Amino acid sequence: MLKTKIDAMLKSIKQERPVVHCITNFVTVNDCANVILACGGSPTMAHHEGEVAEITTQSDALVLNMGTVDDCEAMVIAGVKSNELRHPVIFDPVGVGASTLRANFFENILQKVHLDVIRGNVSEIKKIATGHSDMQGVDASATDQITEENIKEVAKMAKELSTRLNTIIIVSGPIDVVTNGDVTYLVRNGHEMMSQVTGTGCMSTALIGACCGANAEHLLEAALLGTVIMGISGEVAYRTTQAQCGGTMTFRTQLIDCISMLDESIVKGEMKVETFETI
Amino acid sequence: MLKTKIDAMLKSIKQERPVVHCITNFVTVNDCANVILACGGSPTMAHHEGEVAEITTQSDALVLNMGTVDDCEAMVIAGVKSNELRHPVIFDPVGVGASTLRANFFENILQKVHLDVIRGNVSEIKKIATGHSDMQGVDASATDQITEENIKEVAKMAKELSTRLNTIIIVSGPIDVVTNGDVTYLVRNGHEMMSQVTGTGCMSTALIGACCGANAEHLLEAALLGTVIMGISGEVAYRTTQAQCGGTMTFRTQLIDCISMLDESIVKGEMKVETFETI
Amino acid sequence: MLKTKIDAMLKSIKQERPVVHCITNFVTVNDCANVILACGGSPTMAHHEGEVAEITTQSDALVLNMGTVDDCEAMVIAGVKSNELRHPVIFDPVGVGASTLRANFFENILQKVHLDVIRGNVSEIKKIATGHSDMQGVDASATDQITEENIKEVAKMAKELSTRLNTIIIVSGPIDVVTNGDVTYLVRNGHEMMSQVTGTGCMSTALIGACCGANAEHLLEAALLGTVIMGISGEVAYRTTQAQCGGTMTFRTQLIDCISMLDESIVKGEMKVETFETI
Repeated sequence: MLKTKIDAMLKSIKQERPVVHCITNFVTVNDCANVILACGGSPTMAHHEGEVAEITTQSDALVLNMGTVDDCEAMVIAGVKSNELRHPVIFDPVGVGASTLRANFFENILQKVHLDVIRGNVSEIKKIATGHSDMQGVDASATDQITEENIKEVAKMAKELSTRLNTIIIVSGPIDVVTNGDVTYLVRNGHEMMSQVTGTGCMSTALIGACCGANAEHLLEAALLGTVIMGISGEVAYRTTQAQCGGTMTFRTQLIDCISMLDESIVKGEMKVETFETI
Repeated sequence: MLKTKIDAMLKSIKQERPVVHCITNFVTVNDCANVILACGGSPTMAHHEGEVAEITTQSDALVLNMGTVDDCEAMVIAGVKSNELRHPVIFDPVGVGASTLRANFFENILQKVHLDVIRGNVSEIKKIATGHSDMQGVDASATDQITEENIKEVAKMAKELSTRLNTIIIVSGPIDVVTNGDVTYLVRNGHEMMSQVTGTGCMSTALIGACCGANAEHLLEAALLGTVIMGISGEVAYRTTQAQCGGTMTFRTQLIDCISMLDESIVKGEMKVETFETI
Repeated sequence: MLKTKIDAMLKSIKQERPVVHCITNFVTVNDCANVILACGGSPTMAHHEGEVAEITTQSDALVLNMGTVDDCEAMVIAGVKSNELRHPVIFDPVGVGASTLRANFFENILQKVHLDVIRGNVSEIKKIATGHSDMQGVDASATDQITEENIKEVAKMAKELSTRLNTIIIVSGPIDVVTNGDVTYLVRNGHEMMSQVTGTGCMSTALIGACCGANAEHLLEAALLGTVIMGISGEVAYRTTQAQCGGTMTFRTQLIDCISMLDESIVKGEMKVETFETI
């Protein structure tokens, strides 16, 4: 049943061509725009306070990414407007544990804007859930990794955070967790080479933005779909990169190529999703 | 005769190595710099108000791109200085119909700087020509497409706008229009896959900047040359991408690769340019 | 002996996974992050004045790049903090001869922060050493090229500047110079195609940052290692690009791919380093 729904949702992106408004960091902005185009959406990267409300009004989803901690006021303006219009708001708390500025920036957004989806690595989600993390820089710390051993604990943390914030939480890692507090999915797609390219987290969030923009009535499944597409594309890209004896940049090219060429049959054949049952 | 002129102009870019000063958006700035290098120019991406006049003075052409509506004052300073020095100024009105801020930003530049060339998609040019468009985001809207049916109308609009502003107008689309009000060319090169990669419009404008920088005495033909190079490169890139079973990122790589390897014989063999005769 | 040391240092990057804090320009920031990841480091691109001291404290090296002359105050804050913590500070004086603003920006940094390594092209280093250069834009000028004829002169200039500033100086070009005033190395690796892609200079500086972050006790050798890796990767990338009939963007992909796949045997087999003996 999940597969049938995902099938229809994947088609809807190409049919609806959702306009995804992104306020994001300058490091990975180009990749994010290309990922949105690759999956069938139309990206609008606009961050000026004087226009974000107007741009958001013409869009189908809003993606906010705090990677370089700029444009906080623009994010609030666009977020409040998106909430009014009931456009889905997807947030990426990049490096939220790496500085006090980032932690405060996130708290500020959280107080003023309802975030429909938050996607981060385990260090970031842990920081939001507990106020603590072992972050050093923007990557998940070595002590904060999702493993078969701690997956239940991570899923429980995500589920509780989701309920507390009334927000879909996605934890990205070797096993991804996608939860709305009631239903929790584990996704075992993806490849570790994704961590050797900058911006794969940001790209996931942008892709989820496109999925949500075209499927605003089914946000949990849209969040899951974006997570699955990214993971499968990572696996396929790894295989094609190996076949070409390529390195990390060939992998990036193949990753976005794969997103642009993915069809329903690949997604249905390769997706590894299970429902997480709390003990 | 046009082919002979274009032949000499193409060579002149590699020989003159024009310095192209760009004040542009952070989404596609890297692609723009790489396109200018690929065709034989030397890009200088400099946007600080405190240096743009000095940078422009050392350059051969100025490319202004309002994609993220930043640096308006720097654009005015650089534009005024370029006008004084009679350096060609090439303008890209990205998303001018998408917000009031963008419309005002454009009006402000237009009042203070003479723009030698304006290149946009049909929604953008229509907004400038008529004050209206169906823009949603930064892509040409679905109702604003250039087709065989409406090409005369689009060309007429471009021609009239060109005369009114005393500016070369380029409308990019399935058929491109290049006009100085007196002479109007239609270019039937290009491939629809160009719209699945972010920044192909910005790259066109940057490329035209390099063509104009090396051929400031023949701006109409330089604008045409840039348009033709981009279109042919799109076609060649599509074929090589297909041969490699690649997606949108392979296409981008091939697109810029092609610009860097283009020689006169390919351009002369593949160009599809006709003169538009008004009825 | 040099080869043995470089062998151990190369391994240390992958083992230590140094966090490299970069305050850099928006043109090539994505490439710089990807190069740091490719060689085994963890990049953190953070430029907000309100967090750079905190971010730097968690990092192993600081890379400052003045490519778009932004964030001067943030650079000073992060630089002073890095000096306190004895983290290596690597500086890229992009286009320092291209405007008064850039010259002043550099002087300001130099007065407030001890720079452990400065890497630039010959026009940039000449400007710093003599106050003059023939720069036009950000590329080395045609009259400022390193050749077999003037290499002694360039090496002498670098050596004297190194002694005067108590800073390791790297001059990039057809022959690279790496000197700490006492010992001077010439590196004959690299390929001219590197100048046809934007950001190869910035990427070198970022790569050197990763090398220094993992080997802070051996900065001269770390600076040399980064220079050698970049040069060898340029050569390998040229060969694979030729084999694929590719252009400048294929070359960029291959360049970073090569950095991500480089092992000790390739580096030892391909490095062309000699000690420069002053006459």
